Amino acid sequence: MFDRVCIIGFGLIGSSLARALVKKSLVKTVICADVSEDVCKTALRLGLAQEATTNLSKAVENCDLVIICAPVGAYAAIGATIKDHLQQGAIVTDVGSVKQAVVEQLQPHIPAGVYFIPAHPIAGTENSGPEAGFAELFVNRWFLITPLEKTPAEQVQRLVALWEGIESRVETMDPKHHDLTLAITSHLPHLIAYTIVGTATALGDDLQSEVIKFSASGFRDFTRIAASDPVMWRDIFLNNREAVLEILQRFNEDITQMQKAIRQSDGDTLFDHFTRTRAIRRQIIDAGQADYRYSKTVQEGTPPVEAPDKRRGSAT
Amino acid sequence: MFDRVCIIGFGLIGSSLARALVKKSLVKTVICADVSEDVCKTALRLGLAQEATTNLSKAVENCDLVIICAPVGAYAAIGATIKDHLQQGAIVTDVGSVKQAVVEQLQPHIPAGVYFIPAHPIAGTENSGPEAGFAELFVNRWFLITPLEKTPAEQVQRLVALWEGIESRVETMDPKHHDLTLAITSHLPHLIAYTIVGTATALGDDLQSEVIKFSASGFRDFTRIAASDPVMWRDIFLNNREAVLEILQRFNEDITQMQKAIRQSDGDTLFDHFTRTRAIRRQIIDAGQADYRYSKTVQEGTPPVEAPDKRRGSAT
Repeated sequence: MFDRVCIIGFGLIGSSLARALVKKSLVKTVICADVSEDVCKTALRLGLAQEATTNLSKAVENCDLVIICAPVGAYAAIGATIKDHLQQGAIVTDVGSVKQAVVEQLQPHIPAGVYFIPAHPIAGTENSGPEAGFAELFVNRWFLITPLEKTPAEQVQRLVALWEGIESRVETMDPKHHDLTLAITSHLPHLIAYTIVGTATALGDDLQSEVIKFSASGFRDFTRIAASDPVMWRDIFLNNREAVLEILQRFNEDITQMQKAIRQSDGDTLFDHFTRTRAIRRQIIDAGQADYRYSKTVQEGTPPVEAPDKRRGSAT
Repeated sequence: MFDRVCIIGFGLIGSSLARALVKKSLVKTVICADVSEDVCKTALRLGLAQEATTNLSKAVENCDLVIICAPVGAYAAIGATIKDHLQQGAIVTDVGSVKQAVVEQLQPHIPAGVYFIPAHPIAGTENSGPEAGFAELFVNRWFLITPLEKTPAEQVQRLVALWEGIESRVETMDPKHHDLTLAITSHLPHLIAYTIVGTATALGDDLQSEVIKFSASGFRDFTRIAASDPVMWRDIFLNNREAVLEILQRFNEDITQMQKAIRQSDGDTLFDHFTRTRAIRRQIIDAGQADYRYSKTVQEGTPPVEAPDKRRGSAT
């Protein structure tokens, strides 16, 4: 589908994409562009890219597809670096977890005759780096595409076809709506997980070791999310500030209500709330987002249990 | 080890315990005592108990072991009902997620010559009812025992041996310390999960369906926890009020700090915080609490990923 694809930022997502595109024979040549010399060496060593360089402007030359897989905070600098080296007719796209800010930061750098198509695959793990990637990361995962109005439909379709080729489920969305949706489904959960793990660490050495020891009781799920890449997440919060603050404000109101119910021993309010949330879980299972895949093969003879979808659990 | 064991409350935990004790041949006869006629019928139908009754006082007669597996809020009533029917020399124990309140509520009902030994296995899933149980629920899970000072060591040892017999890892703890530890490792995470799922449902129909659709991005983990039994959790919060409110207060302070950092675009504070929480995750993996068991067998050829320990993930 594409001849030369340059992947800027060769971490978990970038390297997984390289693996998937090659596996499905959708591109001829993969060029790894990464600010880290080590990452470039690893990409070559693992055979994930045919070329690798820390020189971004050189990397994008002669490429018909450029995919930015770097933290969102680096986009403006990347745009300024590559803008004069992009090939006419090329598509520039990205995988960033926020979309309004991306359009604002990158679009000014895109020359006429180059098509900028912002996008966001909802896939990931809490691990980072090129060695953490794998080809199946995007299979059956959502790929949200937020094209600009002026972009020709046939160019958007080229990118859609590529992601469908690696078995993603594609959905088109408005950037603002994307950012609000992700603020609640991803950004706030991550912020809370980061916070509660921090709260636990501040408890003092004695209690902290107990927390680690007995983490299986719920806390462990939070620590997994809170192990995600710090730079990436800093940039997400800085670049989706308003949506995150709005959702956080609502959450704060709700937790204050729970706090009051506990303080006043108001069991009815607690019970009603806990009963409502069960229904949501049921809807998610019905929507096929709670994945039973592995449990069927692994845990035969045991009751139906929830899935090992951990590897994709902290998608952003 | 024991002749007749009466399990009061035959849900996920009670029925799993019945399965485990029979599987390991540690008891001769299992008596199911449950307020629900349906649960009693299910217990007999599944062959999990030799006797089943809704009459608790009758159920405990002639039993040398009574294990209360009901929601903590029902303990006082259970104690009042069974107190005159307990056999001399019997052990009464429980599996409740809070321990100070349990001692206060149950101890007054325990007659002389009967040994009350409060305890708490850290195991569970988000599913409820006798059909959700399975014999391996407690394998390699912590069993926290919080005996009273006056209880003879040999009686405590009898109970410890039973739980070691079903492959739990036993640890002795003071009830107050137990309640504080669980407030941070389990109760606060559950409260937050319940809250955020509620926040999402209040967003309006349009956004709510998006939340369900794109839940894989972090939110899904929270919904799983928030699907746990509402009665059980209401009772936990009402009975561990002070510890939960104290930990919640600390969490609120911390999230306010994060909120401020986002509002002020203070990337350094965010980055420092996110980097610290990674270290905690590392310690939990080192402590063996993040379980790689299944991933080895299921996902060969893919990079090391986190485990399908979901089935035990929402232990309380």
